[in-house]
Amino acid sequence: MQNAGLLKELIQSLCCLPGVGPKSAQRMAFHLLQRNRDGGRQLSLVLAQAMDKIGYCRDCRTLTETEVCEICANRLREDDLLCVVESAADVWVIDQATSFKGKYFVLHGRLSPLDGIGPDELGIDKLEQRLAGGAIKEIILATNSTIEGQATAHFIGEIANKFNIRATRIAHGVPMGGELEFIDSGTLAHAFAGRREV
Amino acid sequence: MQNAGLLKELIQSLCCLPGVGPKSAQRMAFHLLQRNRDGGRQLSLVLAQAMDKIGYCRDCRTLTETEVCEICANRLREDDLLCVVESAADVWVIDQATSFKGKYFVLHGRLSPLDGIGPDELGIDKLEQRLAGGAIKEIILATNSTIEGQATAHFIGEIANKFNIRATRIAHGVPMGGELEFIDSGTLAHAFAGRREV
Ligand SMILES: [Zn+2]
Ligand SMILES: [Zn+2]
Repeated sequence: MQNAGLLKELIQSLCCLPGVGPKSAQRMAFHLLQRNRDGGRQLSLVLAQAMDKIGYCRDCRTLTETEVCEICANRLREDDLLCVVESAADVWVIDQATSFKGKYFVLHGRLSPLDGIGPDELGIDKLEQRLAGGAIKEIILATNSTIEGQATAHFIGEIANKFNIRATRIAHGVPMGGELEFIDSGTLAHAFAGRREV
Repeated sequence: MQNAGLLKELIQSLCCLPGVGPKSAQRMAFHLLQRNRDGGRQLSLVLAQAMDKIGYCRDCRTLTETEVCEICANRLREDDLLCVVESAADVWVIDQATSFKGKYFVLHGRLSPLDGIGPDELGIDKLEQRLAGGAIKEIILATNSTIEGQATAHFIGEIANKFNIRATRIAHGVPMGGELEFIDSGTLAHAFAGRREV
């Protein structure tokens, strides 16, 4: 084996990226070394900064390098709509895909008693403080449609009821443009149960 | 859009990796930030070191952090067999896939007059010096089986003839138009065993 040292280390380190196996890592390492060293240096720099400086928003717990994230600090966004999601990635996805202009709350997980993840781990106390504040009129439960995600949505919905705040759940069903024969049976059953008058 | 700063920069920087688009870059960034900051820091460190410290071997021109690479410095490898390849990645791939125990010479490209790539750019003068040294009995032409790779092999074969050195070309199993880097190891081993005089 050649260049056992640094080159091998680089290939191994690239494998820490999700979806990157030894073959892709090898291709990435050679690509950077032979064709884009400036890109590699830039990535190294941004990576170090991001790992050290990006923390969690004081108000919504999403990833941010400032004490309060841009969305929470944005006075143009509606204060009476709060969307609850499982992860910071969901905030990013929803904000890119939808026209939602309210605020978010990030759980960083879902209720999972077997894994020792309860209300404390999900910041439910902080969420209750916000609901108690009185500004929020509707809470949108956008947790995943897994069993645990559903249970988490139900749990938070109950809390919202306690504060007399409307709780809604994002609609689940057949994706737009999706062909019925390729949809899994659980989704299809859900789509049938949730059918509406047209 | 949230967190316009560092998070967005990180996602953009990850796009410099081959095969990584905005969607994968997004997934990678969130994965590192939420689940593996130590891995991200380690990658940053190794990346910076690799970009700065990995250079080219004095003798064979492959990527290495030392003046002479491990293969060239290895006294157990045969000095009379020289395998000529287009890229340092090919050295890596051949050394993993085959039982070849000779030495290498890396062209870092192929003859391509339209792109201004001639013998000078490929280090042919250095290759001729090695052939003139007298130790080499056979040169294995393992350039890609593209038209330019074939032409490059032919060109170097002629030089070998001038020095009365046997020149062989890897053959069986490498698909026409295929790049070595992406060939499975079995095919590559077969191609080595089935090499022919050119
Ligand atoms: Zn926030
Ligand atoms: Zn070398």
